[in-house]
This record gives sequence, C-alpha cells and structure tokens, in this order.
Amino acid sequence: MDLASIGEFGLIERIRSGQSLPSGVMGIGDDCAVIPRGDGLDTLVTTDLLLEDKHFILSDITPFQLGWKSASVNLSDIAAMGGTPVGSFLSIGLPNGLSAEWMDDFIAGYRKASGGCPLLGGDTTAADKLCINVGVLGECPHGKALLRSGAKPGDIIYVTGPLGDSGAGLKIILQGLKRDEDALKLIERHYLPNARLSEGLVLSGLEGVHSAMDISDGIASDLEHILKASGVGAEVDVTRLPISAELQRVSALYGWDTIALAVASGEDYELLFTASPEVKIPFENHYAIGRIVEGSGIVWKGTGEHFTGFRHF
Amino acid sequence: MDLASIGEFGLIERIRSGQSLPSGVMGIGDDCAVIPRGDGLDTLVTTDLLLEDKHFILSDITPFQLGWKSASVNLSDIAAMGGTPVGSFLSIGLPNGLSAEWMDDFIAGYRKASGGCPLLGGDTTAADKLCINVGVLGECPHGKALLRSGAKPGDIIYVTGPLGDSGAGLKIILQGLKRDEDALKLIERHYLPNARLSEGLVLSGLEGVHSAMDISDGIASDLEHILKASGVGAEVDVTRLPISAELQRVSALYGWDTIALAVASGEDYELLFTASPEVKIPFENHYAIGRIVEGSGIVWKGTGEHFTGFRHF
Repeated sequence: MDLASIGEFGLIERIRSGQSLPSGVMGIGDDCAVIPRGDGLDTLVTTDLLLEDKHFILSDITPFQLGWKSASVNLSDIAAMGGTPVGSFLSIGLPNGLSAEWMDDFIAGYRKASGGCPLLGGDTTAADKLCINVGVLGECPHGKALLRSGAKPGDIIYVTGPLGDSGAGLKIILQGLKRDEDALKLIERHYLPNARLSEGLVLSGLEGVHSAMDISDGIASDLEHILKASGVGAEVDVTRLPISAELQRVSALYGWDTIALAVASGEDYELLFTASPEVKIPFENHYAIGRIVEGSGIVWKGTGEHFTGFRHF
Repeated sequence: MDLASIGEFGLIERIRSGQSLPSGVMGIGDDCAVIPRGDGLDTLVTTDLLLEDKHFILSDITPFQLGWKSASVNLSDIAAMGGTPVGSFLSIGLPNGLSAEWMDDFIAGYRKASGGCPLLGGDTTAADKLCINVGVLGECPHGKALLRSGAKPGDIIYVTGPLGDSGAGLKIILQGLKRDEDALKLIERHYLPNARLSEGLVLSGLEGVHSAMDISDGIASDLEHILKASGVGAEVDVTRLPISAELQRVSALYGWDTIALAVASGEDYELLFTASPEVKIPFENHYAIGRIVEGSGIVWKGTGEHFTGFRHF
C-alpha cells in the first residue's frame, strides 16, 4: 500500500498506535506534547518541518521572512496551548549557493519572531534543497495547557483574527498576480504570521475556556480536530467569519470566494478556541463564529448549498 | 561570501553570537542544551537532521536500520550528557513511492532503538527526498550533566568501544565492496549504532569524571571540542585505540589505515570522556587512549610522521 493512500492522519495514527505513555504524558494529538514534571509546571514541545518547494519558494520569500515564519509557526503551537516558550532548536539543511548574508538575514527574522525565546541548539548540514526543522520547548502551569479535547456543547467558538488572508497571499504568489498594496498585505500575512502568544497565555488563565488550537489548515479541517477530540459538533455562521478589507477587495478583483478561503486555505496561525458564553474575553481581537453543539461534524450556516461540501474536509 | 567558505562551525558561531541566555541555561556548544528547572532536574534537548544522499542512501539502508539510526544518534547525545531520555519527536518528509510497510519497518526500528523512550510528537509532510529530523528531550539531576568543558590536565582519556568500524562500513557501502561476514559487521556498526545511555548514566554519577561527548565526527575532530571547551591539550597514544578484529581483517584486505579510520572517520557513537586517574570505571567497555595535558591541541603518539596531519583537523 502506498503511503499517499493512507494520508497524513492515517500515517500519524500508524506512528502513534501501540505505544504506552508514562502517566500524565500527552503525546501525539494536540498542538504540543505535554510532559508533567515535579515543579508544578508541564513541559510543552512542538516541532515543524518546512521544505523548499513544498512549504515555500526560495526565490520568492526573503530570508528574513523565512526565518520569521520558521520560528513563528512553532511558537504558534505553544500559543495554542497557552504556554510560554522557553527555547527553540533549529535544524537547517543548506543547499549550495546561499550566502552568509542570506543566513544572517534568516537568523535576524528568526530572532525577531522569537522575541525573548532564545535559540538553544540545532543542527546544520548540506542539502540539495533548503530544509528547515524547528522545535520549540515551552512550559505552562501543571494541568493548565489548553487542549483540543475540552469543548462543551453551548461553548462559543472564537477566532483571534481575520481568516483567509494567508491563503490568498499564497494564491497571489503561486499565480504570479500583481502585488499592489492589498496584495502585499496578504502576502505579508502569509510570510510573517504572528504567533498569538499573549492571547494564548490570557486564555489559559481564564476559567471557562475549554479548548484551543492554532489554525494551520483552515477551520474546516482544524475545527474538526477539536470536535473529534471533544466528542461534540459545531454550528459555524460563515457570515460572522472575520474577513479583512484587503481580502474582500482582492477577492472582488479576481472573483474569489472569500468564505472558501477563510475556512479552508490555512496558515492563518490565528487561535481557534471555545469558551462558555459567560466568559468575558479580555482582549479585543476575538470573533465569535459559531457554537459547539451535541453530535459531531460542522453545520455551516449562512451560506448557499455549494458550501456544505466543507463538511467532508 | 558563500556559506561553504564559513564552514559548519563558522555558521554555528554566527547563529550563536549576540544572544543572551537566561541564567543557568546552556545553549549551543555541547551535545545537548541544558535548561535548569525548579524540581532539581535539568532538561536536556538535542536534535539531528538526516537527509537522503547526504547521510544515507535510501536504496541501501533498510527502513528498520534507518529508523533505528535516526533515534540512536540523538539518544547518543543524551547519553553523552549522562542524561535519561524522556521523549522523542520525529519530523519526516516522505517522497512518493514509499510504502506503508516501509513506514511500519522504519517505526519498528525507531522504537527498538528508543527502548522505553516514547515518541511524543513530530511532523509529517511530502518531500522530494527523504528528510528526517529527530529531537530528543531528556533530563538529569541539576548541575550533573557531563559537559565538554570540564577536562583537567592529568585526566585519562577514554572511549567506550572500538573506533573506525562505522567509517569502514560506510567505505564498504560507498565503494560497493563485497559483503562478507566481517564487512556486514562493520556495516551494521554504521547502520545500527548503539547509544551508550547506561554508560553515560553511570559516568554522570561518578566523582572525578570531568568531561564527555559522543563520537560523531571521529576523535581527531571531537576531542578538539573537549580541548577547546576545557582550555587544555591532549596526548593520544594511537597504539591504544581499540580496533575491532573485523576492522583489522577488512583493512588488511584492502590496505586501509586502521588508525586513520579510527581517529577520523566518525559515526561510531561511542562516548569519549575524561576522568581523574584514580577514578575506577565500573563498566568493562572502557579503553584508555591518552591523557589530558596543559596547553592545546592533540599530540599523537605511537605513529609515524604521516600521522601528524591529524593535528590540523
């Protein structure tokens, strides 16, 4: 059987199955692994692989942007757990022809996105194509990590910012469309995502916030992870999805479906979280997009027939 | 300036420089990063990138062997610090055409080499060529990690097993030499290295063991790291290097210099450590190969003129 026919999640299931974990340890299945320790904290670990021509086009992305993004997508997983990053680890396979200045700019972007989180180790090697793996070590108070598995019927579903910008930016890059001010803003959202660390930290301290993850594949896919892990369903009102003015204008220009981009294009790295209706979210950038219900799967509201297909993502 | 002209260590220095670390944290520069925490333990982290055609030839290595080696070379870094592995993280970029059975065998080898250390997370993606990054999280009692920086004049220099086997195995693979029983043993040493976890753990508990690292590049290069980190020099008696019977026989057949292989071919993943002469090493597989002296650099003893070149590795 070819690996492609199993798919990513089938593959992960094969890797995960048949392993017994020490008590209290959470392995594969959330944004980070969670490993309790003796000082009242849990260690969090996440890792992401970024490959040239699969995740980025080296001739388009600047080294600063690539360094930024490599750090940021991992810090976003720490944010999704409500954790604090402690240190990062960079493995990089470098093809011939990159300059020392390229590397300096990459590291500058990496450090800028990392904020106070120091780069503590890694590996460097030669490669045919650029290959980057980042791991981040974080921590949170014991038992306080925001998991995917806690969503409860009645919870409001929130996201922390506009959806679809990153995917639209990628379309502009791949299709070679013109880069006016709006397009550049969308590309920036694709290349320079912000890890929502402060929002994650606030959410992990709030009673009644029941689940969270970061949006890497688009909510049509990502919300399903929360639903499956929690044994619940969801209703999402697509008229309430936050769509940026830039995405609206660029989509009008090219006839793109903003809602399809918002739910299924991914790499926005906003947080997706659920909380009891009585919880007051103490930061501005929170957008209620639906609610958790009994059952399973997503019911999309406020859209035409064409849209029900997203149920099967 | 091309990156190649800087070299690996120049590159690492560029990445490391200009960063301030939290008190007590040790980042780049040893086998693992060391991060103190509040429960009397230090967290250890290491990571290694293995790329097809750079670190292995996919058509030659079996998936079991590749899985084993991917885990083992990282566990070896935990061993070199005298730590205990807690969990591992596997990022894997998979080219088209690999089967599910291939992946199952890879995971079987990975798990076998991991012993009780669970696989807690990772990332999977498509790739043009197979690309593997493993990270391992470990721990040790606070302040007890075996560092490269503690070697003292008068210390005896030890290794935990025969040197050069892995490099000879690689020569046999790359040159397509015949695979008799001896050759297969050397290839096995290349593909199925053993992380010296129990030895590392014993050493970290012994008063008077001053420094350690694992041998990944060959002692001509690796011992220099200990010397530089410790501000000392070394005398190595090459007649005392442990050379396996297999390596002797195969080298006789092809006219290979066993000593050159032993000091410079790498990937043996034995431990290299230094200890006061009065320390009794309580496991059998320890071989005294020289001693630490004042000064800097390695003086090679017991060999002809041709051998002094290794000083400049």
